[in-house]
Amino acid sequence: MSTDNIVDISKPWFPYDERELETFITSLSKKLGDHLMNRPHSYNETPVIEFKQPAEIRDQINMSIDKPTSFKELRTLIDVMDFSVKTDHPHFFNQLFAQADPVATVGEWVTAVMNASMYTFEVAPVLTCMEKDVLRIMEDSLGFLEEGKPSGNGIFCPGGSISNLLALNVARFWKFPQVKEEGMHSIPKIAFFVSELAHYSMKKSFQIMGVGTKGLYEIKADDRGVMIPSELLKSIEIAKEDGYVPCCVVCTAGTTVFGAYDPIDVFSKIARKNEMWLHVDGAWGGSVILTSDHNKLMEGVENADSITWNPHKLMGVPQQCSAMILHSRHAGLLKAAHSTAATYLFQTDKENAEYDTGDTTIQCGRKNDILKFWMMWKSIGLKGMTSRLDHVWAISRYLVHAINQRSDNFILVNDPMCTNVCFYYVPPCLREQADYKLPYNQWTEEMKQKISQVCPKIKAMMQQKGSMMCNFQAQKEYVNFWRMVIISPCLSSSDMDFVLDEIESCGKTLNL
Amino acid sequence: MSTDNIVDISKPWFPYDERELETFITSLSKKLGDHLMNRPHSYNETPVIEFKQPAEIRDQINMSIDKPTSFKELRTLIDVMDFSVKTDHPHFFNQLFAQADPVATVGEWVTAVMNASMYTFEVAPVLTCMEKDVLRIMEDSLGFLEEGKPSGNGIFCPGGSISNLLALNVARFWKFPQVKEEGMHSIPKIAFFVSELAHYSMKKSFQIMGVGTKGLYEIKADDRGVMIPSELLKSIEIAKEDGYVPCCVVCTAGTTVFGAYDPIDVFSKIARKNEMWLHVDGAWGGSVILTSDHNKLMEGVENADSITWNPHKLMGVPQQCSAMILHSRHAGLLKAAHSTAATYLFQTDKENAEYDTGDTTIQCGRKNDILKFWMMWKSIGLKGMTSRLDHVWAISRYLVHAINQRSDNFILVNDPMCTNVCFYYVPPCLREQADYKLPYNQWTEEMKQKISQVCPKIKAMMQQKGSMMCNFQAQKEYVNFWRMVIISPCLSSSDMDFVLDEIESCGKTLNL
Repeated sequence: MSTDNIVDISKPWFPYDERELETFITSLSKKLGDHLMNRPHSYNETPVIEFKQPAEIRDQINMSIDKPTSFKELRTLIDVMDFSVKTDHPHFFNQLFAQADPVATVGEWVTAVMNASMYTFEVAPVLTCMEKDVLRIMEDSLGFLEEGKPSGNGIFCPGGSISNLLALNVARFWKFPQVKEEGMHSIPKIAFFVSELAHYSMKKSFQIMGVGTKGLYEIKADDRGVMIPSELLKSIEIAKEDGYVPCCVVCTAGTTVFGAYDPIDVFSKIARKNEMWLHVDGAWGGSVILTSDHNKLMEGVENADSITWNPHKLMGVPQQCSAMILHSRHAGLLKAAHSTAATYLFQTDKENAEYDTGDTTIQCGRKNDILKFWMMWKSIGLKGMTSRLDHVWAISRYLVHAINQRSDNFILVNDPMCTNVCFYYVPPCLREQADYKLPYNQWTEEMKQKISQVCPKIKAMMQQKGSMMCNFQAQKEYVNFWRMVIISPCLSSSDMDFVLDEIESCGKTLNL
Repeated sequence: MSTDNIVDISKPWFPYDERELETFITSLSKKLGDHLMNRPHSYNETPVIEFKQPAEIRDQINMSIDKPTSFKELRTLIDVMDFSVKTDHPHFFNQLFAQADPVATVGEWVTAVMNASMYTFEVAPVLTCMEKDVLRIMEDSLGFLEEGKPSGNGIFCPGGSISNLLALNVARFWKFPQVKEEGMHSIPKIAFFVSELAHYSMKKSFQIMGVGTKGLYEIKADDRGVMIPSELLKSIEIAKEDGYVPCCVVCTAGTTVFGAYDPIDVFSKIARKNEMWLHVDGAWGGSVILTSDHNKLMEGVENADSITWNPHKLMGVPQQCSAMILHSRHAGLLKAAHSTAATYLFQTDKENAEYDTGDTTIQCGRKNDILKFWMMWKSIGLKGMTSRLDHVWAISRYLVHAINQRSDNFILVNDPMCTNVCFYYVPPCLREQADYKLPYNQWTEEMKQKISQVCPKIKAMMQQKGSMMCNFQAQKEYVNFWRMVIISPCLSSSDMDFVLDEIESCGKTLNL
């Protein structure tokens, strides 16, 4: 017997008790709203994480979805989410995102209820206009708008890696348009030049693009993490000798670990001279363009061809919000590179077809990531956004100052450009071993080996206590050091004092 | 003078008045909650869309983000969102998604507040466990779990196009692992075989992968839209003669327009014999596996190598929620294909490193798309999910029945397999022109030319009225026809009667 026979289609199917659902939604939204309002006042009592092993998590939360669960139980389970990392805790410094703005956060609630998809004006009329208009502001701030050329020459992507992938694909298409139809076999081997400290999405992009990671030439960076122009010139020659055609240079505006800015102005000239595309990966540090004093770090960005810029990092928008923008001189190229002109969706004889963004990217359905960003920006205005960024930059500079003040225990790895600050902490047990005040390259191997254990050990202690989460890293010749990232404007100078105090307090008992 | 000097870092930067913010959040969440609760009872009074041109939208909504805006104004602006398409209106049939489940919707609110990123267990302990466990259930339903092999061999992606891209990249890597490092120049030209009715993300994937769309062999489909096995066999031979090595076959489980299911069982044998990967694009129709009576449409899926399956379509989860899953016989392959082993994020000597999903995909930061899905599924259980899907399938079968009952005005294009129903409406002005009761291939060119104008004209009328949104399409030899898609379980049989009545009512005045 077919089940169709026993399905009652005379009325809608609705699995919930309306009153219970209403209570659930009301109490949940109250809990979430209270959380957003109270977090500035309650974090001293709350750990960043209450750490549990996978088995313990599964013990506390019944993950099974086999049997229906009452709303009462569901509420309890959501409480158990407290085992999650509080990424909105002021002392969460672990990643390149942190406490999201409250207005942007509730903007995402509206987004969930609207449940739009961004491919056509027809299904997302307000939101596609909004995306175009916000892109215009971003383009304007970058100097990407050329007179007489249309704006809105970009797209919001699900994260910086996908933004970078799109940009690199456009670069390849710009150089060799036949690749779209005929593939890599129809064109020479091509080379992309990126900093040795560039984000790993570069490698991932070349893998998926069929360029192969061998087509990726990593250019040496200096001690601050800045890609060295003369090294690029050398690499271009080597690539040519290897049989590769130079295709694209990527400047990073804010590297992942050091926060270094490659000099776009210099590299754009090299790119132009060698008929290469210049992409700027500003996923992390691109927001600097809106600061009052630090936007010189991106001097020459108006000469770049494309940029990745993630508002979900320094601008405090919840995940995901990442823009990939082309200079207006390349109007139409994004679409040319990606369109398949699917007739069932993008009828060209339709009204307002120029607002249909779907055929300019590799996604079909595309989540609305613009509303939350727009709501936040609109509520604080451009000055507010600038003031937010100025605050976090100033906090990071205070941290540098505080580290220098405590030079008996703390040593900067280098002089930071973005809001990441990389440093060593030398615990008492190592201070007796004498040579830590010498420049790093004069440290003994034994010292390096020992100091590399400091971060993992202290991090584990802090994770157990739930006092703070901060990442560590080895990079270039440097063994494990702390990478602090300042993102949230909910921080004040006393939080930076706390960071150093907490590391010291954990470190004093170390015995290496 | 540096602005740093005038930034007050002795306290957090907070741009909002706390009381006003609280009122804003409270009233907004009340509005959203009320909307979710009231929509089942209010839709008769609400249009699907209040259509506006871009200029009118910008007139009503001040898009400018330059100056700060009060919460009061922001509230008003959000009200103006009423110009957006109500994708949760029961009569929104325009895309392959519709009214989202209310529990999943508020699940997204929790997601926004948690603001996690899914790359490592360390920052998303609960959520990475949850993703693994839900994937296991999905794998189990597909017969993807082989004894002794680990589960959780998949990943949630930002939409079906990215899921497909990942799967095709894994297919290429499985066949030619050297491509990851050495690129397409190190391997022969490769061919992918997809239905002529496959989703356009296939083309987009080949463009970006450097395979080129020429490496894409489109296989003829029959009248129902089902890919023809003998045509694949012919194409394989042609591809070989063209100098291509066959790499992968893609079966579609639910094509975009006709909703056709390719016979996976048959194609998996051909794939195996020719040493090709078999990917199933079940973005739209994969959910059929959980129905009581229609899962035979995916017979043999346990022999596939990978699948795309979008809970944000037939399962009613808000955008975005798409899974890409490999058969457990390919454990480890997803990571092998995509890893770059970035040391700053994926320290292998870290505890629980096997839960770190970041290096198995091309994203870095990855939005949490699992919580909302889990909350919804958990609250209704597996039986509830089945019952939801049974309901929509039954509604779609009722629509077929109703169309056949009205055979004087309505003609099915073909016999549907999924919940899309494709049909012609013949308005009175064309009924006099005699030949519409003949099979389609005997229609005169004049008749075809005239009937192709029916859908766009009626669609525009309905859009003006806001009564309903439904897509139309030409496909294969058929000129424009209606493509109804039944997704939301909030529908009953009377809504299907409404659809046909409304088309009739608009059509009766047509004069072609």
